[in-house]
Amino acid sequence: MPKVVLHYFPLKALGESARLLLAYGGQEFEDKRVSMEDWPAYKPSTPFGQMPVLEIDGKQYAQSMAIARYLGRKYGLSGQDIEVDFEIDQNIEFVNDIRAKAASVHYEPDEAIKEKKHEDFVKNQYPFLIGKLDEMIKKNKGHIAAGKLTWADFVFAGMFDYLKVMLRMPDLEQKYPSFKQVIDAVYADAKVKAYSENVPKADVNF
Amino acid sequence: MPKVVLHYFPLKALGESARLLLAYGGQEFEDKRVSMEDWPAYKPSTPFGQMPVLEIDGKQYAQSMAIARYLGRKYGLSGQDIEVDFEIDQNIEFVNDIRAKAASVHYEPDEAIKEKKHEDFVKNQYPFLIGKLDEMIKKNKGHIAAGKLTWADFVFAGMFDYLKVMLRMPDLEQKYPSFKQVIDAVYADAKVKAYSENVPKADVNF
Ligand SMILES: N[C@@H](CCC(=O)N[C@@H](CS)C(=O)NCC(=O)O)C(=O)O
Ligand SMILES: N[C@@H](CCC(=O)N[C@@H](CS)C(=O)NCC(=O)O)C(=O)O
Repeated sequence: MPKVVLHYFPLKALGESARLLLAYGGQEFEDKRVSMEDWPAYKPSTPFGQMPVLEIDGKQYAQSMAIARYLGRKYGLSGQDIEVDFEIDQNIEFVNDIRAKAASVHYEPDEAIKEKKHEDFVKNQYPFLIGKLDEMIKKNKGHIAAGKLTWADFVFAGMFDYLKVMLRMPDLEQKYPSFKQVIDAVYADAKVKAYSENVPKADVNF
Repeated sequence: MPKVVLHYFPLKALGESARLLLAYGGQEFEDKRVSMEDWPAYKPSTPFGQMPVLEIDGKQYAQSMAIARYLGRKYGLSGQDIEVDFEIDQNIEFVNDIRAKAASVHYEPDEAIKEKKHEDFVKNQYPFLIGKLDEMIKKNKGHIAAGKLTWADFVFAGMFDYLKVMLRMPDLEQKYPSFKQVIDAVYADAKVKAYSENVPKADVNF
Protein backbone atom coordinates (compact mmCIF):
# COMPACT_ATOMS: atom_id res chain seq x y z
CA MET A 1 0.00 0.00 0.00
CA PRO A 2 1.44 3.40 -0.96
CA LYS A 3 2.15 5.98 1.76
CA VAL A 4 -0.46 8.69 1.42
CA VAL A 5 -0.75 12.10 3.07
CA LEU A 6 -3.64 14.50 2.52
CA HIS A 7 -2.68 18.09 3.29
CA TYR A 8 -5.50 20.54 3.89
CA PHE A 9 -6.86 23.05 6.34
CA PRO A 10 -8.95 21.84 9.30
CA LEU A 11 -11.99 22.22 7.08
CA LYS A 12 -14.16 20.13 4.79
CA ALA A 13 -14.69 22.56 1.86
CA LEU A 14 -12.42 21.47 -1.02
CA GLY A 15 -10.43 18.85 0.88
CA GLU A 16 -13.08 16.56 2.30
CA SER A 17 -13.86 14.79 -0.98
CA ALA A 18 -10.31 13.40 -1.06
CA ARG A 19 -10.56 12.24 2.55
CA LEU A 20 -13.89 10.53 1.89
CA LEU A 21 -12.57 8.86 -1.24
CA LEU A 22 -9.43 7.62 0.51
CA ALA A 23 -11.62 6.21 3.26
CA TYR A 24 -13.85 4.55 0.66
CA GLY A 25 -10.80 3.03 -1.02
CA GLY A 26 -9.59 1.60 2.28
CA GLN A 27 -6.39 3.59 1.85
CA GLU A 28 -4.72 4.49 5.12
CA PHE A 29 -3.56 8.08 5.04
CA GLU A 30 -2.12 10.76 7.24
CA ASP A 31 -4.82 13.39 7.56
CA LYS A 32 -2.51 16.39 7.83
CA ARG A 33 -4.55 19.40 8.96
CA VAL A 34 -2.53 22.58 8.58
CA SER A 35 -3.65 25.43 10.81
CA MET A 36 -4.01 28.96 9.48
CA GLU A 37 -1.08 29.99 11.68
CA ASP A 38 1.21 27.39 10.13
CA TRP A 39 0.00 28.00 6.58
CA PRO A 40 2.32 30.85 5.48
CA ALA A 41 5.39 28.73 6.26
CA TYR A 42 3.80 25.68 4.63
CA LYS A 43 2.53 27.36 1.46
CA PRO A 44 5.81 27.44 -0.52
CA SER A 45 6.15 23.66 -0.16
CA THR A 46 2.94 23.03 -2.13
CA PRO A 47 2.79 22.74 -5.96
CA PHE A 48 0.70 25.88 -6.53
CA GLY A 49 0.74 27.59 -3.15
CA GLN A 50 -2.64 26.13 -2.25
CA MET A 51 -4.27 23.08 -0.72
CA PRO A 52 -5.61 20.40 -0.87
CA VAL A 53 -2.46 18.48 -1.76
CA LEU A 54 -2.45 14.71 -2.09
CA GLU A 55 0.94 13.14 -1.50
CA ILE A 56 1.52 9.60 -2.75
CA ASP A 57 4.87 8.02 -1.88
CA GLY A 58 6.42 11.47 -1.64
CA LYS A 59 4.96 12.78 -4.92
CA GLN A 60 2.65 15.78 -4.51
CA TYR A 61 -0.52 16.42 -6.50
CA ALA A 62 -2.78 19.45 -6.20
CA GLN A 63 -6.25 20.52 -7.40
CA SER A 64 -9.28 19.11 -5.64
CA MET A 65 -11.21 18.10 -8.74
CA ALA A 66 -8.23 16.34 -10.34
CA ILE A 67 -7.58 14.54 -7.05
CA ALA A 68 -11.19 13.37 -6.77
CA ARG A 69 -11.33 12.18 -10.38
CA TYR A 70 -8.09 10.24 -9.95
CA LEU A 71 -9.15 8.56 -6.71
CA GLY A 72 -12.54 7.84 -8.23
CA ARG A 73 -10.98 6.06 -11.19
CA LYS A 74 -8.64 4.17 -8.89
CA TYR A 75 -11.44 2.94 -6.63
CA GLY A 76 -13.98 2.01 -9.30
CA LEU A 77 -16.12 5.12 -8.91
CA SER A 78 -15.90 6.41 -12.47
CA GLY A 79 -17.80 5.54 -15.64
CA GLN A 80 -17.65 2.30 -17.61
CA ASP A 81 -16.74 4.21 -20.79
CA ILE A 82 -15.66 7.68 -21.86
CA GLU A 83 -19.23 8.77 -22.57
CA VAL A 84 -20.27 8.10 -18.97
CA ASP A 85 -17.12 9.81 -17.69
CA PHE A 86 -18.08 12.77 -19.86
CA GLU A 87 -21.44 13.00 -18.14
CA ILE A 88 -19.85 12.74 -14.69
CA ASP A 89 -17.35 15.50 -15.54
CA GLN A 90 -20.07 17.67 -17.00
CA ASN A 91 -22.35 17.39 -13.99
CA ILE A 92 -19.70 17.97 -11.35
CA GLU A 93 -18.35 20.91 -13.31
CA PHE A 94 -21.83 22.40 -13.12
CA VAL A 95 -21.86 21.87 -9.34
CA ASN A 96 -18.50 23.58 -9.25
CA ASP A 97 -19.92 26.55 -11.15
CA ILE A 98 -22.54 26.95 -8.43
CA ARG A 99 -19.83 26.77 -5.75
CA ALA A 100 -17.70 29.33 -7.58
CA LYS A 101 -20.66 31.68 -7.91
CA ALA A 102 -21.49 31.44 -4.23
CA ALA A 103 -17.79 31.87 -3.38
CA SER A 104 -17.61 35.06 -5.42
CA VAL A 105 -20.17 36.51 -2.99
CA HIS A 106 -18.85 34.89 0.17
CA TYR A 107 -15.30 36.20 -0.34
CA GLU A 108 -16.31 39.69 -1.47
CA PRO A 109 -14.45 41.96 0.95
CA ASP A 110 -16.74 45.00 0.63
CA GLU A 111 -19.79 44.42 2.86
CA ALA A 112 -22.17 46.63 0.89
CA ILE A 113 -21.28 45.08 -2.46
CA LYS A 114 -21.44 41.64 -0.92
CA GLU A 115 -25.00 42.10 0.30
CA LYS A 116 -26.13 43.57 -3.00
CA LYS A 117 -24.58 40.70 -4.91
CA HIS A 118 -26.09 38.12 -2.58
CA GLU A 119 -29.57 39.59 -3.05
CA ASP A 120 -29.10 39.67 -6.80
CA PHE A 121 -28.02 36.01 -6.88
CA VAL A 122 -30.83 34.92 -4.56
CA LYS A 123 -33.25 36.44 -7.03
CA ASN A 124 -31.65 35.90 -10.41
CA GLN A 125 -29.19 33.03 -10.19
CA TYR A 126 -29.61 30.55 -7.36
CA PRO A 127 -33.21 29.45 -8.02
CA PHE A 128 -32.39 28.46 -11.59
CA LEU A 129 -29.08 26.79 -10.70
CA ILE A 130 -30.37 24.91 -7.67
CA GLY A 131 -33.47 23.87 -9.58
CA LYS A 132 -31.29 22.45 -12.38
CA LEU A 133 -29.20 20.59 -9.82
CA ASP A 134 -32.27 19.10 -8.16
CA GLU A 135 -33.57 18.01 -11.56
CA MET A 136 -30.19 16.46 -12.39
CA ILE A 137 -30.01 14.46 -9.18
CA LYS A 138 -33.58 13.20 -9.51
CA LYS A 139 -32.86 12.10 -13.06
CA ASN A 140 -29.83 10.22 -11.75
CA LYS A 141 -31.74 8.39 -9.00
CA GLY A 142 -30.20 10.28 -6.10
CA HIS A 143 -26.76 10.72 -7.62
CA ILE A 144 -24.91 13.52 -9.38
CA ALA A 145 -24.43 11.52 -12.57
CA ALA A 146 -24.57 8.18 -14.33
CA GLY A 147 -27.51 6.98 -12.18
CA LYS A 148 -25.11 5.44 -9.68
CA LEU A 149 -22.53 6.20 -6.99
CA THR A 150 -19.53 7.98 -8.54
CA TRP A 151 -16.70 10.19 -7.31
CA ALA A 152 -18.87 13.18 -8.19
CA ASP A 153 -21.16 12.28 -5.29
CA PHE A 154 -18.12 12.45 -2.99
CA VAL A 155 -17.22 15.91 -4.26
CA PHE A 156 -20.76 17.08 -3.64
CA ALA A 157 -20.98 15.48 -0.19
CA GLY A 158 -17.57 16.86 0.77
CA MET A 159 -18.38 20.45 -0.10
CA PHE A 160 -22.04 20.47 0.94
CA ASP A 161 -21.67 22.20 4.33
CA TYR A 162 -19.40 24.80 2.76
CA LEU A 163 -21.87 25.38 -0.06
CA LYS A 164 -24.74 25.86 2.38
CA VAL A 165 -22.79 28.48 4.32
CA MET A 166 -21.87 30.37 1.17
CA LEU A 167 -25.40 30.19 -0.23
CA ARG A 168 -26.75 31.09 3.25
CA MET A 169 -29.22 28.24 3.00
CA PRO A 170 -28.89 26.28 6.25
CA ASP A 171 -31.90 24.12 5.43
CA LEU A 172 -30.95 23.37 1.85
CA GLU A 173 -31.26 19.59 2.20
CA GLN A 174 -34.63 19.89 3.89
CA LYS A 175 -35.87 21.89 0.94
CA TYR A 176 -34.22 19.56 -1.55
CA PRO A 177 -34.38 15.98 -0.30
CA SER A 178 -32.55 14.89 -3.44
CA PHE A 179 -29.41 16.59 -2.10
CA LYS A 180 -29.67 14.58 1.09
CA GLN A 181 -29.94 11.40 -0.97
CA VAL A 182 -26.55 12.03 -2.57
CA ILE A 183 -24.90 12.66 0.79
CA ASP A 184 -26.55 9.64 2.39
CA ALA A 185 -25.36 7.43 -0.46
CA VAL A 186 -21.77 8.44 0.24
CA TYR A 187 -21.97 7.95 4.01
CA ALA A 188 -23.80 4.65 3.59
CA ASP A 189 -20.45 3.04 2.82
CA ALA A 190 -19.18 1.43 6.03
CA LYS A 191 -15.59 2.66 5.64
CA VAL A 192 -16.69 6.21 4.92
CA LYS A 193 -19.03 6.09 7.90
CA ALA A 194 -16.23 4.84 10.16
CA TYR A 195 -13.91 7.60 8.92
CA SER A 196 -16.52 10.31 9.47
CA GLU A 197 -17.21 9.16 13.00
CA ASN A 198 -13.56 9.25 14.03
CA VAL A 199 -12.48 12.44 12.35
CA PRO A 200 -11.61 15.55 14.39
CA LYS A 201 -14.46 18.03 14.19
CA ALA A 202 -13.53 20.63 11.59
CA ASP A 203 -12.53 23.88 13.33
CA VAL A 204 -14.84 25.88 11.17
CA ASN A 205 -18.05 24.04 10.46
CA PHE A 206 -17.49 23.55 6.73
CA MET B 1 -19.18 9.37 -38.44
CA PRO B 2 -21.52 10.87 -35.83
CA LYS B 3 -23.31 14.13 -36.59
CA VAL B 4 -21.68 16.81 -34.44
CA VAL B 5 -22.69 20.40 -33.75
CA LEU B 6 -20.69 22.79 -31.59
CA HIS B 7 -22.83 25.61 -30.22
CA TYR B 8 -21.03 28.68 -28.96
CA PHE B 9 -20.82 32.43 -29.31
CA PRO B 10 -18.78 33.92 -32.18
CA LEU B 11 -15.78 33.89 -29.82
CA LYS B 12 -12.83 31.70 -28.98
CA ALA B 13 -12.80 31.97 -25.15
CA LEU B 14 -14.29 28.74 -23.72
CA GLY B 15 -15.52 27.27 -26.99
CA GLU B 16 -12.44 27.23 -29.19
CA SER B 17 -10.78 24.24 -27.51
CA ALA B 18 -13.67 22.02 -28.62
CA ARG B 19 -13.45 23.35 -32.19
CA LEU B 20 -9.70 22.76 -32.30
CA LEU B 21 -10.07 19.26 -30.90
CA LEU B 22 -12.82 18.36 -33.38
CA ALA B 23 -10.58 19.60 -36.18
CA TYR B 24 -7.67 17.58 -34.82
CA GLY B 25 -9.86 14.48 -34.68
CA GLY B 26 -10.90 14.93 -38.30
CA GLN B 27 -14.51 15.16 -37.14
CA GLU B 28 -16.72 17.19 -39.42
CA PHE B 29 -18.96 19.45 -37.39
CA GLU B 30 -21.41 22.27 -37.74
CA ASP B 31 -19.76 25.29 -36.16
CA LYS B 32 -22.92 26.94 -34.89
CA ARG B 33 -22.08 30.49 -33.81
CA VAL B 34 -24.96 31.98 -31.86
CA SER B 35 -25.08 35.79 -31.87
CA MET B 36 -25.71 37.75 -28.69
CA GLU B 37 -29.04 38.86 -30.17
CA ASP B 38 -30.19 35.30 -30.69
CA TRP B 39 -28.87 34.05 -27.36
CA PRO B 40 -31.87 34.81 -25.06
CA ALA B 41 -34.14 32.67 -27.25
CA TYR B 42 -31.49 29.96 -27.54
CA LYS B 43 -30.52 29.78 -23.87
CA PRO B 44 -33.41 27.62 -22.61
CA SER B 45 -32.54 24.91 -25.14
CA THR B 46 -29.10 24.32 -23.56
CA PRO B 47 -28.47 21.91 -20.65
CA PHE B 48 -27.44 24.59 -18.12
CA GLY B 49 -28.39 27.82 -19.86
CA GLN B 50 -24.84 28.35 -21.06
CA MET B 51 -22.50 27.48 -23.91
CA PRO B 52 -20.37 25.83 -25.20
CA VAL B 53 -22.61 22.87 -25.95
CA LEU B 54 -21.38 19.86 -27.89
CA GLU B 55 -24.13 17.95 -29.66
CA ILE B 56 -23.41 14.40 -30.78
CA ASP B 57 -26.14 12.67 -32.78
CA GLY B 58 -28.70 14.88 -31.09
CA LYS B 59 -27.41 14.40 -27.53
CA GLN B 60 -26.25 17.61 -25.87
CA TYR B 61 -23.27 17.95 -23.54
CA ALA B 62 -22.15 21.10 -21.76
CA GLN B 63 -19.10 22.31 -19.79
CA SER B 64 -15.99 23.26 -21.71
CA MET B 65 -13.51 21.31 -19.61
CA ALA B 66 -15.58 18.12 -19.67
CA ILE B 67 -15.96 18.49 -23.44
CA ALA B 68 -12.21 18.94 -23.97
CA ARG B 69 -11.32 15.98 -21.75
CA TYR B 70 -13.80 13.75 -23.58
CA LEU B 71 -12.61 14.73 -27.05
CA GLY B 72 -9.01 14.40 -25.89
CA ARG B 73 -9.59 10.84 -24.71
CA LYS B 74 -11.43 10.04 -27.91
CA TYR B 75 -8.65 11.33 -30.15
CA GLY B 76 -5.66 9.89 -28.28
CA LEU B 77 -4.70 13.13 -26.54
CA SER B 78 -4.93 11.93 -22.95
CA GLY B 79 -2.50 10.06 -20.69
CA GLN B 80 -1.41 6.44 -21.03
CA ASP B 81 -2.53 5.70 -17.46
CA ILE B 82 -4.57 7.30 -14.69
CA GLU B 83 -1.48 8.86 -13.09
CA VAL B 84 -0.67 10.79 -16.26
CA ASP B 85 -4.32 11.79 -16.64
CA PHE B 86 -4.13 13.02 -13.05
CA GLU B 87 -1.23 15.30 -13.94
CA ILE B 88 -3.02 16.62 -17.04
CA ASP B 89 -6.16 17.35 -15.01
CA GLN B 90 -4.14 19.02 -12.27
CA ASN B 91 -2.24 21.29 -14.61
CA ILE B 92 -5.19 22.42 -16.68
CA GLU B 93 -7.21 23.03 -13.51
CA PHE B 94 -4.42 25.36 -12.43
CA VAL B 95 -4.63 27.19 -15.78
CA ASN B 96 -8.35 27.44 -15.20
CA ASP B 97 -7.77 28.99 -11.78
CA ILE B 98 -5.72 31.73 -13.45
CA ARG B 99 -8.49 32.29 -16.00
CA ALA B 100 -11.13 32.45 -13.26
CA LYS B 101 -9.05 34.96 -11.31
CA ALA B 102 -8.59 37.20 -14.33
CA ALA B 103 -12.30 36.83 -15.15
CA SER B 104 -13.28 37.97 -11.67
CA VAL B 105 -11.58 41.27 -12.51
CA HIS B 106 -12.65 41.49 -16.15
CA TYR B 107 -16.36 41.03 -15.36
CA GLU B 108 -16.40 43.30 -12.29
CA PRO B 109 -19.14 45.82 -13.12
CA ASP B 110 -17.92 48.63 -10.84
CA GLU B 111 -15.10 50.45 -12.65
CA ALA B 112 -13.35 51.74 -9.51
CA ILE B 113 -13.36 48.34 -7.82
CA LYS B 114 -12.27 46.71 -11.05
CA GLU B 115 -9.19 48.91 -11.38
CA LYS B 116 -8.23 48.45 -7.74
CA LYS B 117 -8.57 44.70 -8.03
CA HIS B 118 -6.58 44.62 -11.25
CA GLU B 119 -3.73 46.55 -9.65
CA ASP B 120 -3.78 44.27 -6.65
CA PHE B 121 -3.63 41.14 -8.81
CA VAL B 122 -0.88 42.59 -11.02
CA LYS B 123 1.18 43.07 -7.89
CA ASN B 124 0.20 40.19 -5.64
CA GLN B 125 -1.21 37.38 -7.77
CA TYR B 126 -0.33 37.30 -11.46
CA PRO B 127 3.49 37.25 -11.19
CA PHE B 128 3.42 34.17 -8.98
CA LEU B 129 0.74 32.38 -11.02
CA ILE B 130 2.23 33.16 -14.42
CA GLY B 131 5.69 32.26 -13.16
CA LYS B 132 4.39 28.88 -11.98
CA LEU B 133 2.74 28.30 -15.34
CA ASP B 134 5.93 29.16 -17.22
CA GLU B 135 7.86 26.77 -14.99
CA MET B 136 5.27 24.05 -15.59
CA ILE B 137 5.40 24.38 -19.37
CA LYS B 138 9.20 24.40 -19.44
CA LYS B 139 9.28 21.27 -17.33
CA ASN B 140 6.89 19.66 -19.80
CA LYS B 141 8.96 20.54 -22.88
CA GLY B 142 6.60 23.13 -24.27
CA HIS B 143 3.37 21.46 -23.14
CA ILE B 144 0.93 21.92 -20.29
CA ALA B 145 1.46 18.42 -18.95
CA ALA B 146 2.86 14.94 -19.50
CA GLY B 147 5.77 16.24 -21.59
CA LYS B 148 3.74 15.79 -24.77
CA LEU B 149 0.78 17.10 -26.75
CA THR B 150 -2.45 16.56 -24.80
CA TRP B 151 -5.95 18.01 -24.79
CA ALA B 152 -4.78 20.43 -22.10
CA ASP B 153 -2.66 22.19 -24.73
CA PHE B 154 -5.81 22.67 -26.81
CA VAL B 155 -7.63 24.23 -23.85
CA PHE B 156 -4.74 26.61 -23.28
CA ALA B 157 -4.37 27.50 -26.98
CA GLY B 158 -8.13 27.99 -27.31
CA MET B 159 -8.43 30.42 -24.41
CA PHE B 160 -5.11 32.22 -24.85
CA ASP B 161 -6.37 35.38 -26.61
CA TYR B 162 -9.16 35.68 -24.07
CA LEU B 163 -6.73 35.23 -21.20
CA LYS B 164 -4.45 37.94 -22.56
CA VAL B 165 -7.33 40.41 -22.80
CA MET B 166 -8.47 39.67 -19.26
CA LEU B 167 -4.93 39.85 -17.86
CA ARG B 168 -4.34 42.98 -19.98
CA MET B 169 -1.06 41.52 -21.19
CA PRO B 170 -1.10 41.84 -24.99
CA ASP B 171 2.54 40.74 -25.27
CA LEU B 172 2.25 37.76 -22.94
CA GLU B 173 3.71 35.25 -25.39
CA GLN B 174 6.62 37.55 -26.20
CA LYS B 175 7.46 37.72 -22.52
CA TYR B 176 6.92 33.99 -22.06
CA PRO B 177 8.08 32.11 -25.15
CA SER B 178 7.05 28.87 -23.46
CA PHE B 179 3.39 29.92 -23.87
CA LYS B 180 3.96 30.37 -27.59
CA GLN B 181 5.44 26.89 -27.77
CA VAL B 182 2.22 25.33 -26.47
CA ILE B 183 0.11 27.23 -28.99
CA ASP B 184 2.45 26.45 -31.87
CA ALA B 185 2.37 22.76 -31.00
CA VAL B 186 -1.43 22.76 -31.35
CA TYR B 187 -1.50 24.66 -34.64
CA ALA B 188 1.34 22.55 -36.04
CA ASP B 189 -1.21 19.83 -36.74
CA ALA B 190 -2.23 20.10 -40.39
CA LYS B 191 -5.96 19.63 -39.75
CA VAL B 192 -5.98 22.21 -36.96
CA LYS B 193 -4.07 24.62 -39.17
CA ALA B 194 -6.54 24.12 -42.02
CA TYR B 195 -9.47 24.71 -39.67
CA SER B 196 -7.96 27.88 -38.24
CA GLU B 197 -7.31 29.33 -41.68
CA ASN B 198 -10.87 28.81 -42.84
CA VAL B 199 -12.74 29.84 -39.75
CA PRO B 200 -14.78 33.06 -39.66
CA LYS B 201 -12.90 35.72 -37.75
CA ALA B 202 -14.35 35.83 -34.25
CA ASP B 203 -16.51 38.96 -33.86
CA VAL B 204 -14.72 39.95 -30.71
CA ASN B 205 -11.04 39.20 -30.87
CA PHE B 206 -11.00 36.46 -28.26
N1 LIG C 1 -8.61 25.02 -7.74
C1 LIG C 1 -8.04 24.68 -6.46
C2 LIG C 1 -8.32 25.78 -5.46
C3 LIG C 1 -7.66 25.51 -4.14
C4 LIG C 1 -7.93 26.61 -3.13
O1 LIG C 1 -8.62 27.61 -3.42
N2 LIG C 1 -7.40 26.40 -1.91
C5 LIG C 1 -7.57 27.34 -0.84
C6 LIG C 1 -8.31 26.74 0.33
S1 LIG C 1 -9.93 26.14 -0.10
C7 LIG C 1 -6.18 27.73 -0.32
O2 LIG C 1 -5.26 26.93 -0.32
N3 LIG C 1 -6.06 28.98 0.16
C8 LIG C 1 -4.88 29.46 0.79
C9 LIG C 1 -4.06 30.35 -0.10
O3 LIG C 1 -4.42 30.58 -1.25
O4 LIG C 1 -3.05 30.88 0.42
C10 LIG C 1 -8.62 23.34 -5.97
O5 LIG C 1 -9.77 23.04 -6.30
O6 LIG C 1 -7.89 22.59 -5.30
N1 LIG D 1 -18.29 26.24 -16.65
C1 LIG D 1 -18.85 26.54 -17.94
C2 LIG D 1 -19.03 28.03 -18.08
C3 LIG D 1 -19.72 28.41 -19.36
C4 LIG D 1 -19.92 29.89 -19.52
O1 LIG D 1 -19.58 30.69 -18.63
N2 LIG D 1 -20.49 30.29 -20.67
C5 LIG D 1 -20.75 31.66 -20.96
C6 LIG D 1 -19.96 32.10 -22.17
S1 LIG D 1 -18.21 31.94 -21.99
C7 LIG D 1 -22.22 31.81 -21.31
O2 LIG D 1 -22.84 30.91 -21.87
N3 LIG D 1 -22.80 32.97 -20.98
C8 LIG D 1 -24.13 33.33 -21.33
C9 LIG D 1 -25.08 33.23 -20.18
O3 LIG D 1 -24.70 32.82 -19.06
O4 LIG D 1 -26.27 33.58 -20.40
C10 LIG D 1 -17.94 26.01 -19.05
O5 LIG D 1 -16.70 25.97 -18.83
O6 LIG D 1 -18.45 25.62 -20.10
